[in-house]
Amino acid sequence: MNGAESLLKTAAAAGIGICFANPGTTELPLVSALDQTGKIRPVLCLAEGVCAGAADGYARMSGRPALTLLHLGPGLANGLAYFHNARRAATPIVNVVGDHASWHLAADAPLTSDIEALARTMSVWVKTSTSPDGLASDMSQAVYQSARGLATIIAPADYQSQRATRSQPPLPPMRMNRCSADIVEGIARALSAAGEKAALLLGGQALSARGLSAAGKIRAATGCGLIHETFPARIERGADQPAVDRLLYVPAAARGMLREFTLLVLAGAREPVTFFGYEGQPSSLVPPQTRLATLAPSPQDECFDAEEALEMLAGEFAGGSAGPQQAHAVAAGCPSGPLTPETFAAAVAAVQPEGAVIVDESVTSGFGYNQASAASPPHTYLVPHLGGAIGHGFPLATGAAVAAPGRPVILLEADGSGMYTLQSLWTQARESLNVTSVICANRKYRILQFELGNDTPSRPSSAADTLLNIDRPDLDWTKIAAGLGVPAESVTTAERLSEALARAVSEPGPHLIEAIL
Amino acid sequence: MNGAESLLKTAAAAGIGICFANPGTTELPLVSALDQTGKIRPVLCLAEGVCAGAADGYARMSGRPALTLLHLGPGLANGLAYFHNARRAATPIVNVVGDHASWHLAADAPLTSDIEALARTMSVWVKTSTSPDGLASDMSQAVYQSARGLATIIAPADYQSQRATRSQPPLPPMRMNRCSADIVEGIARALSAAGEKAALLLGGQALSARGLSAAGKIRAATGCGLIHETFPARIERGADQPAVDRLLYVPAAARGMLREFTLLVLAGAREPVTFFGYEGQPSSLVPPQTRLATLAPSPQDECFDAEEALEMLAGEFAGGSAGPQQAHAVAAGCPSGPLTPETFAAAVAAVQPEGAVIVDESVTSGFGYNQASAASPPHTYLVPHLGGAIGHGFPLATGAAVAAPGRPVILLEADGSGMYTLQSLWTQARESLNVTSVICANRKYRILQFELGNDTPSRPSSAADTLLNIDRPDLDWTKIAAGLGVPAESVTTAERLSEALARAVSEPGPHLIEAIL
Repeated sequence: MNGAESLLKTAAAAGIGICFANPGTTELPLVSALDQTGKIRPVLCLAEGVCAGAADGYARMSGRPALTLLHLGPGLANGLAYFHNARRAATPIVNVVGDHASWHLAADAPLTSDIEALARTMSVWVKTSTSPDGLASDMSQAVYQSARGLATIIAPADYQSQRATRSQPPLPPMRMNRCSADIVEGIARALSAAGEKAALLLGGQALSARGLSAAGKIRAATGCGLIHETFPARIERGADQPAVDRLLYVPAAARGMLREFTLLVLAGAREPVTFFGYEGQPSSLVPPQTRLATLAPSPQDECFDAEEALEMLAGEFAGGSAGPQQAHAVAAGCPSGPLTPETFAAAVAAVQPEGAVIVDESVTSGFGYNQASAASPPHTYLVPHLGGAIGHGFPLATGAAVAAPGRPVILLEADGSGMYTLQSLWTQARESLNVTSVICANRKYRILQFELGNDTPSRPSSAADTLLNIDRPDLDWTKIAAGLGVPAESVTTAERLSEALARAVSEPGPHLIEAIL
Repeated sequence: MNGAESLLKTAAAAGIGICFANPGTTELPLVSALDQTGKIRPVLCLAEGVCAGAADGYARMSGRPALTLLHLGPGLANGLAYFHNARRAATPIVNVVGDHASWHLAADAPLTSDIEALARTMSVWVKTSTSPDGLASDMSQAVYQSARGLATIIAPADYQSQRATRSQPPLPPMRMNRCSADIVEGIARALSAAGEKAALLLGGQALSARGLSAAGKIRAATGCGLIHETFPARIERGADQPAVDRLLYVPAAARGMLREFTLLVLAGAREPVTFFGYEGQPSSLVPPQTRLATLAPSPQDECFDAEEALEMLAGEFAGGSAGPQQAHAVAAGCPSGPLTPETFAAAVAAVQPEGAVIVDESVTSGFGYNQASAASPPHTYLVPHLGGAIGHGFPLATGAAVAAPGRPVILLEADGSGMYTLQSLWTQARESLNVTSVICANRKYRILQFELGNDTPSRPSSAADTLLNIDRPDLDWTKIAAGLGVPAESVTTAERLSEALARAVSEPGPHLIEAIL
């Protein structure tokens, strides 16, 4: 057994079953060892951003870490933007980066760079292995640390090839911190006193079916509002779930929502702040008169059992009736007419089947989707770009589909974002993944025009016209997809979108629909 | 005038005329300021790797830095792999990265990350501006520092918008270190003594027309060999230039070349090392019995006038005749038959017109090109991936074409590498750049199969089969290119490649040729 085999055997023993990889020469012993180990399925991605984003999607759907296998500093660098998003989602990922043979580093050969410095920017834990046996013990530790987010092992090529004596058994899982009974009682009293003037702000694991069920009971008992973070890593939604309002993205609108409440209880969420800093406005979205209480911190900050905390809180009201759930908006029928952000959202919401996994990086085109789909059949909803790094949708959907082969994945993808990682389509084709990518083709970075306060078209040939529009030439997504092995069609009306989406979702393998808005 | 305008006016005054950009919200004041300044042309790239690689190509062809404009940590991260290559080429680039408003950083909003830590990994100089007027003085300093490589300014959004009092005049260029007469005399004596047992190893500016002319004179006078680095950032080649041998990539072959010499004089080059570390071999490629002497260090290590050093050395032999240049290989005619690495290289070499700019990221498919094109009409030859980060070819060719609009650019691109940055094609179409991309479609990471010592096909369904082949499905480059706005065709014979290449080069705008090998 060599170091590479001991590393992979340790990973497999800890429950890792998949590796999103783009290896190079310094990772070849690990490539060979994948066959020796046999329990970890390699998935080739044609650029490292796809590996990073797919690992994030896989873990969000499976709850288990995936491996990523990347090639030295440049390979890692290409994955960092989506590791940044994954960091904000606190997604468990074990990232293995090959490095030169340890004795070759002093030569400062062309591919040499400060891999540790790169890794530290987005990892909760980084280790450069120092011996062949170190690879297995570092893997064991990395799986443990990944409970908090990205754990990176830098694996020198010589240790991968050299003889190792043993693999490592898995460590017990990281202990989650738990909410104290005192805090729960205090928050229960405050919620009872505030009634409808209180709200829970839910994030992280509080948005699981278990967390939401408890939150629904708390609302039934106290009349409090339920709000979720603007960009949830994962939330169970639709007809069977308690209705939860989304904290709106536009700061004035978000402040308007929160102004209704004198008490905001954080459950798996941080105090909400504006995405960007706006002159003359504070960073916090919480009005000065609103009191904050923390039931469970964000998973970004602490490994904490938010589900249990919500259930403890719900238990404080156990005497009362569960009461009726807040009424959902009524599901609308299939819309008709030209595609607009409104008809686009309504068409997707009307067609998506029960059990669908919705990955939403539609940015401005999908602003209406959340409301439109509130009463759609039960589905899982994932926002890729928690950290604002765009282009994460294609890879996230790819990884989610690997983790949930029985469920159709529908990706709502902005064209500007989608252009970052279209290589993902090839992996979807190779792995025959049931992903339907709906491209919202408005041919501009609409969000930036919005932020520029520029709702009128830019002056022709101005820098804003050059840099905020992605027309001239128009992208033809059907050709791009076909070139990458994914069948595709283009639609311009809500009726055609509905038909195409229903057909694509019901057929096996990936599809792409270009929705011209 | 706001801070953004003062920054751009300072850049324009220092001779910067182009900005490869993918801005976001925190860079919008700079987008608006591009119009106020008027002298810097914005070029939109649909992913930051394209910005970074294009800036590298622009500077290699123009000798002047371009700006890159990137969006916070994730935007910078996406550019780092090609900044790593640019660092190995010591290319001048001024990189502006927007950041949150300075007062918003404490909120740790989603897009917040350690931008300085990311930038430091690949930059020779990094500065976070601390006031609106700081943006101009930092730009002035960044242009100065870019003589050594990548200079990064982190520009908080609030300072971009706030009032600034002045722009800054350009600083005098960085002084280059120069070779002392003593060292030149010593090397001249050693070269005379060693005769044909000495060689010059040329890199960096030693490969300019001026440097090569001097090197040719030194060879004529002493009989020494002329060798250039395996991956030259830029070299003038072809019928009018002295023939220079390429240091071969495969370590045994490189050692075989160098074993002929008792003296190796470094001119703009480092002591050559193997690209990767191979068990049982030293890192250095220089045999123990070969003495090293440094005439001019690599531009990676020092800002040094290698051209002057070579001319001083040539001057030591001024009494002698310039003598005949070493004979070039005879240019072959157009080859025929199925495409192989050999006929591929011969076809390109036979068709490329005088003044062509050849960007070579063909990896294994182009191993024969260097020799085949030795007697082609005068051309400039650029290797993108000096630091081993693949996918740099498409963006480098894009930036080179922006810098040299009158010259046809021919990109020889491996399919595995090309898949990293195919977004570049859209920018080529939008900017109507005369780039012909020839994709060497062998549908595998052939170099990795080679490194694995695996010249026979991998066992079906093995990890090596999964991870080192990029078939199933085959990429259709003609559809991908058409979807991105670039006309394309596919060829399978040397005759068809020659015809297609000749036609594409003579027509304006970008083209793509998929060469199925």
